[in-house]
Amino acid sequence: MPLQITILGLDALGASLGLALGTLKPDELNVGRPVITGWDADRRAISEARGKLAIDHAQNDLVAAVRDADVVFVVVPYTALRDVLEMIGPALKYGAIVTDTAAAKARVLEWATELLPATVEFVGGHPLGGVSGDARDAAHNAFRNLIYCLTPLPRTGRAALDGVEALVRAIGAKPYYIEAVEHDAYVAAVGHLPLALSVALMETLSQSGGWRELQPIAGEALLRMTELAGGSPEAGAEAISSNVSALIGWIDRINSTLIDMRTTLADPVAAQALFERVADARATWLRSEPNLRPGEDAFLGNAADVQNTGIGGLFFGRRPSRDRSKRR
Amino acid sequence: MPLQITILGLDALGASLGLALGTLKPDELNVGRPVITGWDADRRAISEARGKLAIDHAQNDLVAAVRDADVVFVVVPYTALRDVLEMIGPALKYGAIVTDTAAAKARVLEWATELLPATVEFVGGHPLGGVSGDARDAAHNAFRNLIYCLTPLPRTGRAALDGVEALVRAIGAKPYYIEAVEHDAYVAAVGHLPLALSVALMETLSQSGGWRELQPIAGEALLRMTELAGGSPEAGAEAISSNVSALIGWIDRINSTLIDMRTTLADPVAAQALFERVADARATWLRSEPNLRPGEDAFLGNAADVQNTGIGGLFFGRRPSRDRSKRR
Repeated sequence: MPLQITILGLDALGASLGLALGTLKPDELNVGRPVITGWDADRRAISEARGKLAIDHAQNDLVAAVRDADVVFVVVPYTALRDVLEMIGPALKYGAIVTDTAAAKARVLEWATELLPATVEFVGGHPLGGVSGDARDAAHNAFRNLIYCLTPLPRTGRAALDGVEALVRAIGAKPYYIEAVEHDAYVAAVGHLPLALSVALMETLSQSGGWRELQPIAGEALLRMTELAGGSPEAGAEAISSNVSALIGWIDRINSTLIDMRTTLADPVAAQALFERVADARATWLRSEPNLRPGEDAFLGNAADVQNTGIGGLFFGRRPSRDRSKRR
Repeated sequence: MPLQITILGLDALGASLGLALGTLKPDELNVGRPVITGWDADRRAISEARGKLAIDHAQNDLVAAVRDADVVFVVVPYTALRDVLEMIGPALKYGAIVTDTAAAKARVLEWATELLPATVEFVGGHPLGGVSGDARDAAHNAFRNLIYCLTPLPRTGRAALDGVEALVRAIGAKPYYIEAVEHDAYVAAVGHLPLALSVALMETLSQSGGWRELQPIAGEALLRMTELAGGSPEAGAEAISSNVSALIGWIDRINSTLIDMRTTLADPVAAQALFERVADARATWLRSEPNLRPGEDAFLGNAADVQNTGIGGLFFGRRPSRDRSKRR
């Protein structure tokens, strides 16, 4: 009996999961090729995923989609995640493993504890990077060399954890066990804080009395620093809203840095020292390998060649080729 | 007797001034082609400017360079500006006109009032954009269609103001009379505030205890938002130090925006409204014409085709072609 995997949510990420799992060779997953069932609230997404051959079976009914599943990947938008967990909980078979891909983990673990029966295993998951868009943007190698954060519940059994880890490795990603609160703080720092700053800059200037006079003289500095604020309001608001409590700590820290800078910048010597320190820190960062966790020696496998689009790839791990020239 | 113009400081901006003034046709400046003398503290800069044919006469001695000048453009770095005004003051001939190009104007007007004799005229100037680098990066059309801010002293005579305005128009720029404190606030908003935010972000993350863990997962969001912080520490620190008092007001405003956002972002509806508002404001800005002041109907002359490099072009007016696709 092959492994039954159900993917709930067939955007680019969900469909890429289907492609990655469906194209595994027998020796890449010791249970053989899994059978993949796909569901999405949007029928068009289901048919796009079928068109991409990302799923073996389409299912229009959420509960029916998970009833026979050994493993359920919940890839729905964060705003729908709690409802989906609540609806599938009673339908899951004994010992089924549920995992998700949301960018905020502490709250998801609370929901899983509250809404999934004790007969079901849960392992929080978050691939750092990957693809965005719809199923047509899916790629079978979207997970190669990505750090894939795993946040089990205290009650999660070893076998379930090993099972999810094996799937993560099979699609080419690197399992990274991390405490949920720590995960949320890191993601807030490198993804949501830059976005919040970009929004704050655009909001501050455009709401100021001088904005009409500022617009014609504003140039590339403002353009670059507001690029993130110019992205999709839906995606941006959803990403940030899911992780506000972790983000607030970083907002407080950057406010504190800015208050210190009021003094530092007034002293040319101190200002130059600050500018040198940040330029050095940035150069050191860019010389480091993306997606290489501290203590890890080198990549396994080949570099990902999938093109990232949208907000997922924007936030984590991958860096655009145009800045690669500065590396090494 | 042709107009005697002296340019103090022969980096890309000073040398571009020389080229622009030296290639004027007789009907572009009613006094005919001026004679241009150039000085720089660095002899190599002088020889580069001569190699570019940006000046008619080189002068290694600062005081000798200004003695016969009708008009003196002071294009030295901001940190050297006060000393240069102090040194040339006693040597200037009766009725000589002094103008500068510094990015902060209130302090420069104080220095001019204090250090230049009453027999000399002063008009503060600041071309928004232009070129950066050394004399080899100079271009005769570097000023075409740039907004050129002019901040006269209360005591400045009408004839002197008309003279500077005529020169500014002759090199293709657009004279823009503005109060010095207002100028400094605008420049702080669109140039120095984005730079300060970029530095604050890099400083906050790289000084945090989690930076080692953050580096491998950080991606394009952090890369983009720290590009300005990764620029030249000398240029960045000098630009910001010259205008700290205006910048501090903007730092306080953005801190206030960020504190408001702690509440706004926790409410998904309010968060989405905020994200939509800033995306709209940015799109409207990008649809507007750069360097077109409020009330101005259209450009005169052709669009500038000079390539901006470095921090001057980065801050003001011009926007890179890669984002032009989003316009209109």
